[in-house]
Amino acid sequence: MSETGLVRQLAYKFKDKNLLARALTHRSYSGNNNERLEFLGDGVLNFLVAHQLYQRFPNLPEGDLSRLRAELVKEQTLSEIATGLSVGEFLNLGEGELKSGGWRRPSVLADAMEAIIGAVFLDGGYPAAAELVGRLLQRRLENINPKSIGKDAKSLLQECLQAQKLNLPEYAVLAIEGEAHCQIFRVSCHIPELEVTTEGKGSSRRAAEQQAAQLAYEKIAKKGKK
Amino acid sequence: MSETGLVRQLAYKFKDKNLLARALTHRSYSGNNNERLEFLGDGVLNFLVAHQLYQRFPNLPEGDLSRLRAELVKEQTLSEIATGLSVGEFLNLGEGELKSGGWRRPSVLADAMEAIIGAVFLDGGYPAAAELVGRLLQRRLENINPKSIGKDAKSLLQECLQAQKLNLPEYAVLAIEGEAHCQIFRVSCHIPELEVTTEGKGSSRRAAEQQAAQLAYEKIAKKGKK
Repeated sequence: MSETGLVRQLAYKFKDKNLLARALTHRSYSGNNNERLEFLGDGVLNFLVAHQLYQRFPNLPEGDLSRLRAELVKEQTLSEIATGLSVGEFLNLGEGELKSGGWRRPSVLADAMEAIIGAVFLDGGYPAAAELVGRLLQRRLENINPKSIGKDAKSLLQECLQAQKLNLPEYAVLAIEGEAHCQIFRVSCHIPELEVTTEGKGSSRRAAEQQAAQLAYEKIAKKGKK
Repeated sequence: MSETGLVRQLAYKFKDKNLLARALTHRSYSGNNNERLEFLGDGVLNFLVAHQLYQRFPNLPEGDLSRLRAELVKEQTLSEIATGLSVGEFLNLGEGELKSGGWRRPSVLADAMEAIIGAVFLDGGYPAAAELVGRLLQRRLENINPKSIGKDAKSLLQECLQAQKLNLPEYAVLAIEGEAHCQIFRVSCHIPELEVTTEGKGSSRRAAEQQAAQLAYEKIAKKGKK
């Protein structure tokens, strides 16, 4: 398996190519796998993101910085970045993992992404890792909104209504469908004063409420812009 | 308040002395406090310790590296280091915190220690922070034992007995003393096959069991050495 394509995507040339190979090796493939590099990469990444956020938001309190960081280093973000670099194509996976589609599993991709960052740090030192992380996260860092991120839809909606001195939304379960082991909840979110009603679905009441709240929040935001 | 003494202890000379002053300022004293520096310092510290452990234990699995790191960056460790540097003497605390002894509270000291590390990173860059953290943790890094750390005494004792194919220890509550709001539990730990019995005290049954297990573990370790 050639890693030239990935090296091009990463825009980082390894002095020690074994490091990249190890970063791409899942534990299902070999004992000499990426788990230790992932540990190191997780540390590098968390720190570099903390530093970027510290500089970019000079007045943001610690709690908000923590929430922003969590958003930027979470599995979903890292697996999206890994997907953008086609990391899945270059992974060394055991037979079972290959068959079950491990190369597109978010946790596998996110772990490999952290391991690659760890490998770049070992190979090129702190400056190389800082350059890489800054580049990989640039768009996300530029677009991140300290006001909304890390908060769930229900909290956001509640804060938005409170700011307008309106009553809290009313949630109601409309239906519980499906068999016992795979129920689907249908929940409504109603804001009388704004004449807004939305409906959410989910595998739990909480998940359905969150979806309904998200839709209501988007509706209100649109109204606000008109 | 002069910080010269602390600068000598730290063996790092700040270009920007305001950074050190801010690192020493608790939120009870000023809005311009050390909370953001603590966020940054926590990131630097976690990463540097991860790197040190990665290098020092080339064969240790990720899970063990994580446990070792947790041990080295936990509040107790950081507050001990801060105490060794007399950080408490140089803290800027609000009146309430001063009166209630905030300058010796482990959480306040640990936070200030992280903030100082963050301040050194901002002032002197990555090499200065790496040098400082390596120096502050040197003795602990040299003495850390990957086999025992992070495990509680009951688990350690159990593993030790299982390795000798012995039965698990028997714990029994001997007495519960004191008033309802400040009870003291006395618990025994008995290992029949080794004729070992110990007694532990604590504010909960669990804490008392841990102490009894710790004493039993130490007795067995001594016996093993004879």
